[in-house]
Amino acid sequence: MMFRMKAVRLHAVGEPLRVEEIETPQARDGETRVRVRAAAFNRRDVFITQGLYPGIELPRTLGSDGAGEIEDGRAVVIDPMLDWGDDPHVWSPKASILGMPRDGTFAQYVVVPSGNVYPKPPHLTMEEAAALPLAGLTAYRAIVTRGELRPGETILIPGIGGGVQTFALLFAKAIGARAIVTSGSDEKLERARALGADVTINYATNPDWNKALKRGEVDAVVDSSGGDTLNKALGVLRPGGRVVIYGGTRLEATFRLFPLFWNHIDIRGTSMGSPADFRAMLEFVNAHEIRPAVDRVYPMEQVNDAAARMAQSEQFGKIVLAID
Amino acid sequence: MMFRMKAVRLHAVGEPLRVEEIETPQARDGETRVRVRAAAFNRRDVFITQGLYPGIELPRTLGSDGAGEIEDGRAVVIDPMLDWGDDPHVWSPKASILGMPRDGTFAQYVVVPSGNVYPKPPHLTMEEAAALPLAGLTAYRAIVTRGELRPGETILIPGIGGGVQTFALLFAKAIGARAIVTSGSDEKLERARALGADVTINYATNPDWNKALKRGEVDAVVDSSGGDTLNKALGVLRPGGRVVIYGGTRLEATFRLFPLFWNHIDIRGTSMGSPADFRAMLEFVNAHEIRPAVDRVYPMEQVNDAAARMAQSEQFGKIVLAID
Repeated sequence: MMFRMKAVRLHAVGEPLRVEEIETPQARDGETRVRVRAAAFNRRDVFITQGLYPGIELPRTLGSDGAGEIEDGRAVVIDPMLDWGDDPHVWSPKASILGMPRDGTFAQYVVVPSGNVYPKPPHLTMEEAAALPLAGLTAYRAIVTRGELRPGETILIPGIGGGVQTFALLFAKAIGARAIVTSGSDEKLERARALGADVTINYATNPDWNKALKRGEVDAVVDSSGGDTLNKALGVLRPGGRVVIYGGTRLEATFRLFPLFWNHIDIRGTSMGSPADFRAMLEFVNAHEIRPAVDRVYPMEQVNDAAARMAQSEQFGKIVLAID
Repeated sequence: MMFRMKAVRLHAVGEPLRVEEIETPQARDGETRVRVRAAAFNRRDVFITQGLYPGIELPRTLGSDGAGEIEDGRAVVIDPMLDWGDDPHVWSPKASILGMPRDGTFAQYVVVPSGNVYPKPPHLTMEEAAALPLAGLTAYRAIVTRGELRPGETILIPGIGGGVQTFALLFAKAIGARAIVTSGSDEKLERARALGADVTINYATNPDWNKALKRGEVDAVVDSSGGDTLNKALGVLRPGGRVVIYGGTRLEATFRLFPLFWNHIDIRGTSMGSPADFRAMLEFVNAHEIRPAVDRVYPMEQVNDAAARMAQSEQFGKIVLAID
């Protein structure tokens, strides 16, 4: 057992992340210590380095996503949602996400509540398993629990490339839905086609991309972009359709009221997911042998390169850190 | 039996409504003719006179709301929702609303599908019963079917005064909820208090009216105002709360994405209601002996005065036409 370990720490907003040696954390009652083998980046980690996140406490080890081994050697993956609470519809006021304020997975060891440790899906590598938790959980709740996507329905996934959107595509195809994706990059659209996207539209060369779709062609939309995407989506949603929003690249969204009320449409907000969502997501991933889209794997020492790639939204799928 | 009858007709957009004699309509198979005793105005009627409604065909007898008698003398009230279809979640593409394109209730006789004729609630006058259908149906679906309001919850009803909002208040109080209402008029707030409103706020003298409420104090919002009301409502909704939107005084709404997704909030669009909603609404009104708020009763000949009052949003509750 090591008494010191390597960890990726943020000391001040706006500073680069530092790889340093700190004390190895000890598990207390009800906690489990995981030897992390791979971790993954989320937009949240970048927001924290930029000071764009509530409740930042520094210095802190970042990272919400991790996979590794526990003391008896079993391979595990970590649910990053802490203290969700008893209500499946909404998290409790005590809820938090691993990696802020609690020290996260960008380290050789992380200590989490034992209930947050699950067996690693056997068909996944450590890197793939590390790519799964936060984005997979968010996408699963968005698509299944909140979006209620059914076989044969059509889902619109604007702005493919980020972690949640790529999982949304994978999950939608596993459900048996038809998937329409948009991106400003032909390369990302090509990758989306390889993952099963049925229709791909480049919004950079087709700014009126919504006009390429029929009115009422879409049953559900999963989005985090804000801006005028919502308005465009409302124009192609069928009556009784729904929009699930799990984040916001822009701060605000504007929409015309008429299509919303006239077509009985729902806009449903969601963040992360409950323990039941996480369990169901793992079962779904195992049953369909879904493999997360991994963009690149960086060694821990190149964590700031990984963060820069994330900040510039260059990735397709998850950016992973290998923890040696 | 008369072969000619008086009716309120619109001949051209922008023109005043005309009271004229036309042929009395005949009921065909599956239809029932109602001798109208009272009708009521909806914003829809005013939008039609202004050309702000899809699918206008002229000349036409306006009016969605009516109460009267059928041939055997029984007192009835009319469900103005035609051809809703089989899906309780959303109307069918064939659905329409009485009064455009089908001739409506501003006449001595109206012919409707027999399934749209229901017994008049016995505790209501003809004027009160005529005030009920469209706004009562819309409010019931907004509050109960879509809003899922429960006893002890708090509902925010911005801009009290219109038909749907006053029914929303009456229904919310009958359910056992706590009601917060806003208006730019102290007189309307006074009337809302008389109907049971627990908290009243004048948004004209308190433009930051949302700051008078605690964050998380509100479980549900029912709104048709658009503009920045949605943003203000999102700031006071509890996690897991919902906003039901049944119309739009303004064309667009803008909202911050963060409170929506972070707090797992739903924005739910609704229009009119299904036959099941209408039946349930009547049962609810009968069970709780709810009396619609009637603003004023105009004789048929003063229909343009009634329309002007509606257009200027001066009313509290429903504007009724007595049909002699």
